[in-house]
Amino acid sequence: KDAKAPPSAKELFRAAMTNVLERRLFFIPSFKIYGSVAGFYDFGPPGCAIKQNVTQLWRQHFILQESMLEVECPAVTPEAVLKASGHVDRFTDFMVTDVKTGDCHRADHLLKAALEALLEDPKAALTPEKKREAEDVLARLDELDGAGLGAALTQYGVKAPETKNDISAPFPFNLMFRTSIGPKGDLTGYLRPETAQGIFVNFKDLLYYNGGKLPFAAAQIGQSYRNEISPRAGLLRVREFTQAEIEHFVNPDDKDHPKFESVERLAPLLFSRVLQTNEAKQPEAMSLGDAVSKKIIANQTLAYFIGRTYLFLVGIGIAPERLRFRQHLPNEMAHYAEDCWDAEVECSYGWVECVGLADRSAYDLRAHSAASKQPLEAYEKFAEPRFEKVLVAKPNKAAIGKAFKKEGKPLQEALDALTQEDAACIKKSFDEGKASTVSAGGRDFEVTPELLDIKLEEQKLSGRKFTPSVIEPSFGIGRIIYCMFEHAYYTRESSEDKTVFRFKPAVAPLKAAVFPLVQQPELNSHARAISTALTRAGLANTVDTTGTTIGKRYARTDELGVPYDITVDRATIDGDGSVTLRERDTTSQVRIHEEKVAGVVQQLVSGELSWQQVLDTYPAQQAAAEDDS
Amino acid sequence: KDAKAPPSAKELFRAAMTNVLERRLFFIPSFKIYGSVAGFYDFGPPGCAIKQNVTQLWRQHFILQESMLEVECPAVTPEAVLKASGHVDRFTDFMVTDVKTGDCHRADHLLKAALEALLEDPKAALTPEKKREAEDVLARLDELDGAGLGAALTQYGVKAPETKNDISAPFPFNLMFRTSIGPKGDLTGYLRPETAQGIFVNFKDLLYYNGGKLPFAAAQIGQSYRNEISPRAGLLRVREFTQAEIEHFVNPDDKDHPKFESVERLAPLLFSRVLQTNEAKQPEAMSLGDAVSKKIIANQTLAYFIGRTYLFLVGIGIAPERLRFRQHLPNEMAHYAEDCWDAEVECSYGWVECVGLADRSAYDLRAHSAASKQPLEAYEKFAEPRFEKVLVAKPNKAAIGKAFKKEGKPLQEALDALTQEDAACIKKSFDEGKASTVSAGGRDFEVTPELLDIKLEEQKLSGRKFTPSVIEPSFGIGRIIYCMFEHAYYTRESSEDKTVFRFKPAVAPLKAAVFPLVQQPELNSHARAISTALTRAGLANTVDTTGTTIGKRYARTDELGVPYDITVDRATIDGDGSVTLRERDTTSQVRIHEEKVAGVVQQLVSGELSWQQVLDTYPAQQAAAEDDS
Repeated sequence: KDAKAPPSAKELFRAAMTNVLERRLFFIPSFKIYGSVAGFYDFGPPGCAIKQNVTQLWRQHFILQESMLEVECPAVTPEAVLKASGHVDRFTDFMVTDVKTGDCHRADHLLKAALEALLEDPKAALTPEKKREAEDVLARLDELDGAGLGAALTQYGVKAPETKNDISAPFPFNLMFRTSIGPKGDLTGYLRPETAQGIFVNFKDLLYYNGGKLPFAAAQIGQSYRNEISPRAGLLRVREFTQAEIEHFVNPDDKDHPKFESVERLAPLLFSRVLQTNEAKQPEAMSLGDAVSKKIIANQTLAYFIGRTYLFLVGIGIAPERLRFRQHLPNEMAHYAEDCWDAEVECSYGWVECVGLADRSAYDLRAHSAASKQPLEAYEKFAEPRFEKVLVAKPNKAAIGKAFKKEGKPLQEALDALTQEDAACIKKSFDEGKASTVSAGGRDFEVTPELLDIKLEEQKLSGRKFTPSVIEPSFGIGRIIYCMFEHAYYTRESSEDKTVFRFKPAVAPLKAAVFPLVQQPELNSHARAISTALTRAGLANTVDTTGTTIGKRYARTDELGVPYDITVDRATIDGDGSVTLRERDTTSQVRIHEEKVAGVVQQLVSGELSWQQVLDTYPAQQAAAEDDS
Repeated sequence: KDAKAPPSAKELFRAAMTNVLERRLFFIPSFKIYGSVAGFYDFGPPGCAIKQNVTQLWRQHFILQESMLEVECPAVTPEAVLKASGHVDRFTDFMVTDVKTGDCHRADHLLKAALEALLEDPKAALTPEKKREAEDVLARLDELDGAGLGAALTQYGVKAPETKNDISAPFPFNLMFRTSIGPKGDLTGYLRPETAQGIFVNFKDLLYYNGGKLPFAAAQIGQSYRNEISPRAGLLRVREFTQAEIEHFVNPDDKDHPKFESVERLAPLLFSRVLQTNEAKQPEAMSLGDAVSKKIIANQTLAYFIGRTYLFLVGIGIAPERLRFRQHLPNEMAHYAEDCWDAEVECSYGWVECVGLADRSAYDLRAHSAASKQPLEAYEKFAEPRFEKVLVAKPNKAAIGKAFKKEGKPLQEALDALTQEDAACIKKSFDEGKASTVSAGGRDFEVTPELLDIKLEEQKLSGRKFTPSVIEPSFGIGRIIYCMFEHAYYTRESSEDKTVFRFKPAVAPLKAAVFPLVQQPELNSHARAISTALTRAGLANTVDTTGTTIGKRYARTDELGVPYDITVDRATIDGDGSVTLRERDTTSQVRIHEEKVAGVVQQLVSGELSWQQVLDTYPAQQAAAEDDS
């Protein structure tokens, strides 16, 4: 496994692959002729095609198959929305600066690098105790606050990389790109750091659109922005990236999923809290049905999305043995979250979070409801009316007027709108013989039983209003594509120079390439006719009529991950009208009639036909010399 | 025609349609629960589906069919790129402020509204001369600079709308959203105002990807941003919008197009310069072949894209008689542009620019080449070597060293890199007996024939380097969709309340709806089976099992523009297994076997089958009562 290989091997692998990716324009550092800007990448033609294929497959797999409500919201977002969501106050990373150059670094990245270097340095001669201490800090890195990071950076004497200058104490830096909306300059906006908020602010309309019924899911695919402090790690940490997010709204009392049985026998690698904290620290394959019944995964809906995510990732070419679902440790999760799992994919950078799956309870809707003063609730009609004890609070209007005169009006309104929780709290004070304090209209009021009568009464309830829980699968499309690149890349045994991407046909930028064996107008025109037939079948393809040897042309398309090559030769015209069809990974070839070949490729791409079936049906073409030409 | 209807009729039409669009969540003012922000809209579920369909059809029609190179670049763009393109200095609108409230207005919008009101006001009693003058200013509005706008606003005594306060003199306001990249705050960035620049900066790599050959086209679909001063006009003028832009790079000496004959017989309404300035001021239908041969359209490539644009727009549902191509007047065009045509679509706002098609010559590549110091050129190998007279400039190294010592080095480099144009200019000075001034390394040098020998020599040239011309079709996807909404919207003759969108099946958000006639589990399960078959055929669909009358359910799907409704009734189960299939616009119905219906709908959507053929093949279902239920 790469995870245990020495770093240099991984780096060599990555450098070789990145060379191919950049040379063939899968991606390009943005604004290259102006010297580029860290954290920005363009997708070139094959990368763009792959990204299109992956997002369309995502749309098919999630939105269409699950009848989700897709929305598209702007990236520019006014401050009020992101203040309510907590991003204005808390979407920060801790930064340190080089005290001499002013260069900025992420505090946790410096600490991580320093600890890893320390642990790997044979000269450090750490005592077992010191070693364990360093390992422990490394494991708890994500939990450290500013003070904790500062203390650790000081303890381990961390300096600025490269310059080795002293560094400042860590301070929070907000990662949102800030801008100003409109000409007056008085409306602050940010580029959204995630697409999810656009769904939450539309919850009311979406619920109405769904006929008022729960559960339902909304989804959005779009760009998000994070002004990373010092982006490294190539395509993995970028400042502008594509997210695909789902918000599945559900009754908090019923998180079962009607289609759970379709995934319950799937057994992905699960890295639960228990497995992360025991001695072996290894994930284990477990069926999702077992994981739910053993309460390892909190509920069916969350487990259902873990299953669907597993099927999606494996379907586009992520190796299942290099994919695990890691549960968040309790102190890694937000206080409101019920349960969180990250889909992590192993690549040359280690295990990388590609998808986050979280049961966020009612947090987001409550936050926007409080900030916007709009109820964001659903209504549940009980199958049978229920008789429930309810606190009924009756303000004494006359007594309030007497006590506070005109100023009593906001208090009156606040008491009219008391929630069950608030009423319970006030009643507790009264029962203890104390008055209670109620804030209204910008001041505090002392409220006594004379002003407010609270009684427990039995009421007949036909239904209830409640704030739905939300289960959020959030996909980083760029990261998934990068990991997919790593899992698809290999070199032929015959030669290290012959690089191949074993893309799944549905993901491949082109489904086929068509070659005339030699440069002859007659062969070219047959090749073009096959290309037209492929295009008509909806299959992206290319024709290469350059005089390059056929072996080199095969190698070029292998490097782009094109799964099928079709070659027109003299036998096509003078013989039986057949062409050769070559499969990328086996390099085996068969002869098929030129009028049939587009249909066969279409069936191969759609999965109706396997290559083995093609080998069994059509005569083989001997092509021993191919890879040597 | 709507164009001649009184404004109130257009506004009523628009209000009625907008009501449906917002109620059915085609689009939603963004951040609604926070009071919205002008110029931002969300696409709700059906709008999002339509936008997906339109962009995928665009990708199919342009990128795949023409083998264009698709790229995807970030929206956040460093200042250097947009400085070079001219946007930092010149991407401005003239703004005036209300001197009392500080409210901002677009100067040209205020002037336009004032002149239109003046011309329509019977009490104004304008002399024919004053009338002509006002009409003239109105027609030349786009050409006015700040001073011209200011003079006209003063002349016509224009005040702030609503407040009627005085307004300031016009001043330029840059329309780009500004932000800062990275934590240090020293790198200014903007949100791109167009997607085109991402293609230009990648020209070198894209040319290489295309094997160094011209012509080729690159395309990008993505978000662009314009911080409009006071956005009105709903979906037409928004601050964040989707563009689809093509940059077709071509040899400036050969702008013929190999596929021109495929469009030369198309005859869209052309509104040439001559037609705009003659008495009638009406566009005329003319074949593109004629328009090119009569030199009305500058070249085949530009005309080819006009033809392809026409096919695309009509194909997604723009009414051809409400679509015209308007040529830019000479002073409306940038100085470098060769020829520009806008595809304008008539809607309730008047004629709206939806696509710009411009031959921008070599301007953009030259601008980026100059700013980035990177050659952005193509190479053309001549079929036969050519013998051409070339200026050969030989700097006298020794004399330069003697004259300027060490400071002569940048001069030496500048003289080594002289272009033919610069050399010609210097030679002209020398021929007139004067020295020439050459700037290098930040200072000016006086250059004499002693320092530089320039001779005209005949050389054998096997090819030449040149900067390609670019022909740019630029699509505003949101505007196109809005105009398509207007052209698709109508109310049934039977009732003003029955609204319908006659979307083309390929554009419709759902292709079919499936209804059990009455609420029965048995009917529901047959309906679900048909829905599954539709999904398997790749057709977005819905099942509506609510107990609402079938007439109301038909009306609901008509309002979403769903082209086909399938109803399961008792005859499906007890009789011959047939269901009814209803077409939206004719409301006619046939009976088809439940196992065949998904296939028939698929053929209808793909266009393999017409509704008339279906009527001719299958028995009709009498449904006189449908629209009354």
